[in-house]
Amino acid sequence: MAETAATPPESLPELIATRDWDALRGILAPIADQDIARVVPELPSEEREHLFAHLLGRERAANVFSYLPTELQGQVLEALTDEDKARLVGELHYDDAAALLDELPDEHTELLMDMLPVADQQVLQALLTYPEDSVGRLMTPEFVAVRPEWTVGRALDHVREQHDAGETVNTVFVTDEGGVLRGMVGLRELLLGHPWSKVEELAADDVVRIGTDEDQEEAARVIRHYDVEVLPVVDAEGMLRGIVTVDDILDVVEEETTEDFHKLGSMSAVGLSLNRASAGLLYRKRIGWLIVLVVVNILSGTAIALFEAAIETVVALVFFLPLVIASGGNAGAQSSTLMVRALATGDVQARDWLRLLGKEAAVSAALGATLGIGVMGAGSWLGGPDVGFAVAISMLLVVVLASMFGMLLPFALNRFGLDPASASAPLITSVVDVFGILVYFSVATVLLL
Amino acid sequence: MAETAATPPESLPELIATRDWDALRGILAPIADQDIARVVPELPSEEREHLFAHLLGRERAANVFSYLPTELQGQVLEALTDEDKARLVGELHYDDAAALLDELPDEHTELLMDMLPVADQQVLQALLTYPEDSVGRLMTPEFVAVRPEWTVGRALDHVREQHDAGETVNTVFVTDEGGVLRGMVGLRELLLGHPWSKVEELAADDVVRIGTDEDQEEAARVIRHYDVEVLPVVDAEGMLRGIVTVDDILDVVEEETTEDFHKLGSMSAVGLSLNRASAGLLYRKRIGWLIVLVVVNILSGTAIALFEAAIETVVALVFFLPLVIASGGNAGAQSSTLMVRALATGDVQARDWLRLLGKEAAVSAALGATLGIGVMGAGSWLGGPDVGFAVAISMLLVVVLASMFGMLLPFALNRFGLDPASASAPLITSVVDVFGILVYFSVATVLLL
Repeated sequence: MAETAATPPESLPELIATRDWDALRGILAPIADQDIARVVPELPSEEREHLFAHLLGRERAANVFSYLPTELQGQVLEALTDEDKARLVGELHYDDAAALLDELPDEHTELLMDMLPVADQQVLQALLTYPEDSVGRLMTPEFVAVRPEWTVGRALDHVREQHDAGETVNTVFVTDEGGVLRGMVGLRELLLGHPWSKVEELAADDVVRIGTDEDQEEAARVIRHYDVEVLPVVDAEGMLRGIVTVDDILDVVEEETTEDFHKLGSMSAVGLSLNRASAGLLYRKRIGWLIVLVVVNILSGTAIALFEAAIETVVALVFFLPLVIASGGNAGAQSSTLMVRALATGDVQARDWLRLLGKEAAVSAALGATLGIGVMGAGSWLGGPDVGFAVAISMLLVVVLASMFGMLLPFALNRFGLDPASASAPLITSVVDVFGILVYFSVATVLLL
Repeated sequence: MAETAATPPESLPELIATRDWDALRGILAPIADQDIARVVPELPSEEREHLFAHLLGRERAANVFSYLPTELQGQVLEALTDEDKARLVGELHYDDAAALLDELPDEHTELLMDMLPVADQQVLQALLTYPEDSVGRLMTPEFVAVRPEWTVGRALDHVREQHDAGETVNTVFVTDEGGVLRGMVGLRELLLGHPWSKVEELAADDVVRIGTDEDQEEAARVIRHYDVEVLPVVDAEGMLRGIVTVDDILDVVEEETTEDFHKLGSMSAVGLSLNRASAGLLYRKRIGWLIVLVVVNILSGTAIALFEAAIETVVALVFFLPLVIASGGNAGAQSSTLMVRALATGDVQARDWLRLLGKEAAVSAALGATLGIGVMGAGSWLGGPDVGFAVAISMLLVVVLASMFGMLLPFALNRFGLDPASASAPLITSVVDVFGILVYFSVATVLLL
């Protein structure tokens, strides 16, 4: 286990309930900001107010606050006086403040904005103009930039002066007089360099960068692919506007992945902690797909109705219906899951579909044959050898068809600009049910009637 | 888009095929290592050999090599002479070299080991003794450490001397004479500090750390929770053994997530790029669960067989069977997906199950009622009002039961030390089919016969 502070964070709510503020100051000192943030949901409003307004001190209050989920930030703010509110928000990093203001109701945003210093207002307004989910919304506009013609000594002096401005001063950016990104240099290289060398002699100039309006997922891809710790963000003119760090990306990746999971479970992305999501919200996120699937399932029922006569003749056929169509659904769910994830990680590209289809045909034929041979015995036992044979042949056909469908649907969705993750297991299963029923009863009709 | 070098990497294979080595040296110079790595799979063996042995230069060859997937690393090594092999492996970072040696067949590992300098052999042997998937296997043993009693000036001199040793010199660790971790200090703080201050005055001593034998997933959790860029790794005696950086964690998180996706699609984790996985491997990863599910599906068939008399009396009942049982499966798949992901991200803890069960009961009752009322019309139209009513009641019951089951199974698996992600949509769907059939035909028998 990771070693943390002496007082276990779980006991904090009780300790805070004692309201022995002087003792608490000492107790809180060695506890990590993130661990304090974790217990905030359990505190009553009054104690939250005291914690953020008085107990933690300005800078620390802002740090703890920045680790709270956005809904909770809104609640904490409501517990504070206007003055304390402005102080807390004024102390936040710009990217955190922008994310907060974006989530608050408009009237709150305006109220808060008016209480902030004008310089902060301008920076925040600028950040809020970038499109949602864009890199501009994720980046922090605080960085340290030096000029290429400066000496290393001057650059280091500049870094020392700016030590409050940059979240990540480990990397120093090189910009020209117009603010256009020209390169970057590690603080370590500056430190190791000769004080009279020019910055441009040490800086790398072929720097990977990204545009403010790009999608945050693209920033995640670039950071992963190029294995960089910090990615400079530039506007259309090439001016350095901010930086994105690898820890920002961890959050983006987790959010995107959770969205993919929810879609693969045939839901709208819940976009909220499951712990805090209300029953009403969960209902709304789930009912849509269930209704769509019901429509598909009614088609299955109609498909069965087509074969009413066959069922009346050989009722035993119905016993194997769930087996055949479910196996198709399962194989299809496997191949769609493989494709959705491989497309999401970039392991597989859109142009690979034909080659993968060939492989899938081979794999699914082998799977279908294995299962078909396996169920032939069960079929023969419950319904006679003819039924056994019909079940085996249907199994092979349905598994191959379903796997092909499960593989191609994510590519097709991707091709039309939709999210491949919408090719959920339940969607595949339901669609495959329809053609599973048609194949099974058709085969049975031909072989048995 | 991220701006990259002038020559698009896609055209590299063609350029390398020209074998105009002198021109290629210039062309490759501005291209990122990762982009060169990306085209290696497309090169024939002879050109790979030339690329890694001659064209790239020692250090760059090792960097490009470290971005290749392990299977490909093995292939590239085979194309090289023994001497070139040893040179390449000797140039790798220790963590990359250990990962490679671990994957190679034993006789290759020994052969390669023998060719390395003794000091390297010792470090690599030590790394390879840590359990698989442990932090010890992930960490790099290269870091820069200073003593608490040193002056800032001396510490900075030490950093300058060590500038080849540390992958991440942005953070300097503080250890005592026994090598026990005492704290850490940013290179930036050292730089900003007075040269005659003591290191201990600047260093943070309440440092989050992790043990060498901990699981890599735990390291990911700690790095995310505490938002640190680098995590020191200590042994049982508290001695600093290595460091894990946030970009190592990105890879761990992606691998773990892909495993979860594959399990949720009812497969064994493929653990390999889908692009390179052979048809045989994919068959083996998929067939196991399909067979397990077939057994469950045969139970469904047997359940239907119990109601043979009812089906013979009212064939229309069968038309709604897929609808009712599939809706149950879909709702169950939704709730299991929500739980699996929430447990994986730590959003939900094992102890939350009872509270979440209450919420799930409310949500699923609302979902079941909505769907039940919706299908009552279709049921009445195809089979008369009695069938419609039976379908609606069954729908409500099956959706609620299935959602409860889908929600509880991940918690139950977790409780018994199994992976919650095994509660896959196909497994839920298949199990729910069995009790869906029983509920549906029982309700129908009571209401209709």
